[in-house]
Amino acid sequence: MDAPGTMTRAPHAIDAETVVCISLSSRPTNIGTRFHNFLAAELGLNLLYKAFRTTDIVGAIAGVRALGIRGCSVSMPHKESVIPLVDALEPSARAIGSVNTIVNDDGVLTASNTDYLAIETLMAERNVDPALPVLLRGTGGMAKAIAAVLHARGAEAVTVLSRTETAGAALAARYGFRATTSLPSPGAATLINATPIGMTGPDASALAFPADHVAAASTVIDVVASPWRTPLIAAAEDAGVERVSGDAVIALQAAKQFTAYTGVELTRDQVDRAARYSQATPPR
Amino acid sequence: MDAPGTMTRAPHAIDAETVVCISLSSRPTNIGTRFHNFLAAELGLNLLYKAFRTTDIVGAIAGVRALGIRGCSVSMPHKESVIPLVDALEPSARAIGSVNTIVNDDGVLTASNTDYLAIETLMAERNVDPALPVLLRGTGGMAKAIAAVLHARGAEAVTVLSRTETAGAALAARYGFRATTSLPSPGAATLINATPIGMTGPDASALAFPADHVAAASTVIDVVASPWRTPLIAAAEDAGVERVSGDAVIALQAAKQFTAYTGVELTRDQVDRAARYSQATPPR
Repeated sequence: MDAPGTMTRAPHAIDAETVVCISLSSRPTNIGTRFHNFLAAELGLNLLYKAFRTTDIVGAIAGVRALGIRGCSVSMPHKESVIPLVDALEPSARAIGSVNTIVNDDGVLTASNTDYLAIETLMAERNVDPALPVLLRGTGGMAKAIAAVLHARGAEAVTVLSRTETAGAALAARYGFRATTSLPSPGAATLINATPIGMTGPDASALAFPADHVAAASTVIDVVASPWRTPLIAAAEDAGVERVSGDAVIALQAAKQFTAYTGVELTRDQVDRAARYSQATPPR
Repeated sequence: MDAPGTMTRAPHAIDAETVVCISLSSRPTNIGTRFHNFLAAELGLNLLYKAFRTTDIVGAIAGVRALGIRGCSVSMPHKESVIPLVDALEPSARAIGSVNTIVNDDGVLTASNTDYLAIETLMAERNVDPALPVLLRGTGGMAKAIAAVLHARGAEAVTVLSRTETAGAALAARYGFRATTSLPSPGAATLINATPIGMTGPDASALAFPADHVAAASTVIDVVASPWRTPLIAAAEDAGVERVSGDAVIALQAAKQFTAYTGVELTRDQVDRAARYSQATPPR
């Protein structure tokens, strides 16, 4: 394993020194592969990234160790089952009991969660005020990451809105937040959609929060990335409200993975171009 | 895992469907990587080949299974220890108790030895007559493969020449051959060097068999590939004797691996060009 600083340029050749990063999921896409390989080529790093489909996380992590694979993105359904297989959990993964990134330092596997880290960065950048009320819709993995970040930022006036009472109550109870299954009155300063509402498919035209809620908010965050311009983001645009769309979350979490694997800090422009490339339909 | 017939062209892109083949050794070189990636690009196959350094063959094979890696070249020191980890041994591997190739068919790992297969093909192509005397120098892995092929071809008048009596006697006894530690009189029709004599390094200028032996032979085979033109091959050229040099053995065994992984039969010209490319110093 080469340290990142000794990676050498080999744009057209894979060789014995090429550093390998992979992803593990049951349904791999090309997004991570295109994001990381685009940046490796642009930066002249001797690194290749390949997505693998696996149902055997134990064998896959044994392979990561035995082959000296430098970095590993972990997707559904392995984000929790991988935890006992690594050597150390960073706070971002420990906070939510979910791993999406593993870095292999000479055989020591350290796991983190860059969804958590991306949300944390975006909330800080957009000055989401932890003293003002937050309405968080959803209870899935991304909602858990968001709730944990809100808690870490000192937010207390957080309401978790969910379809099922038990899931919402469980997430809210963890941090002393409130839970509800019916939409409260408008007034939250930050509206966060962490459900598939607005995503391509049956919920594509649905609006995660009504217009009067959006008009009363100062920041709207939507984790849906496909399309990034959901009805909620469009409503926030129309209302002139500050917004964070799902493509920004995805790009930033991938950028944080790239930095973890290579040590290279990326510019905003590099992240944006890699994100655009990764979302484009590949040529055939 | 795609079947070979459904591989699609993606010369500049790695994607989720890219078929991955690897090598496992304690000291990876770039030769196999360059050989296989050259042919994948030339044939437009969506395949990438990467050499990995490993000391953990159990974890590496677990990774091959979990990640659905299509093909795996096995080098020192894993050629024997990998045997209990695969599901089936082809006759080429069983004959010599040594594996250098694994093919993964939807989770079923079948192991073979393409050194054996390459020697078998070359002896058949050059019409090495099993009824005539053979003098085989060496007792290592390649000598074992050659002895097994000679036996399979029906050769009986085979003498194994070795420095140490026990190793030569053990190999010869397996097939009813003769063993000696001192050079016999000239007269063998086929001379085979399976030692490092003539290889770059301290033995570079040494001649594996004296000139009078070469002059009396009809075929000379040398497994030394670096350089391919050893003093023995040069002596055979001077004497006008049919010869097989080590680069041909290496290229043919790699070609047989490529065919095992992809199902693609290669032309002589394709093998020659891939071999030349694989031996060249890569651009930096």
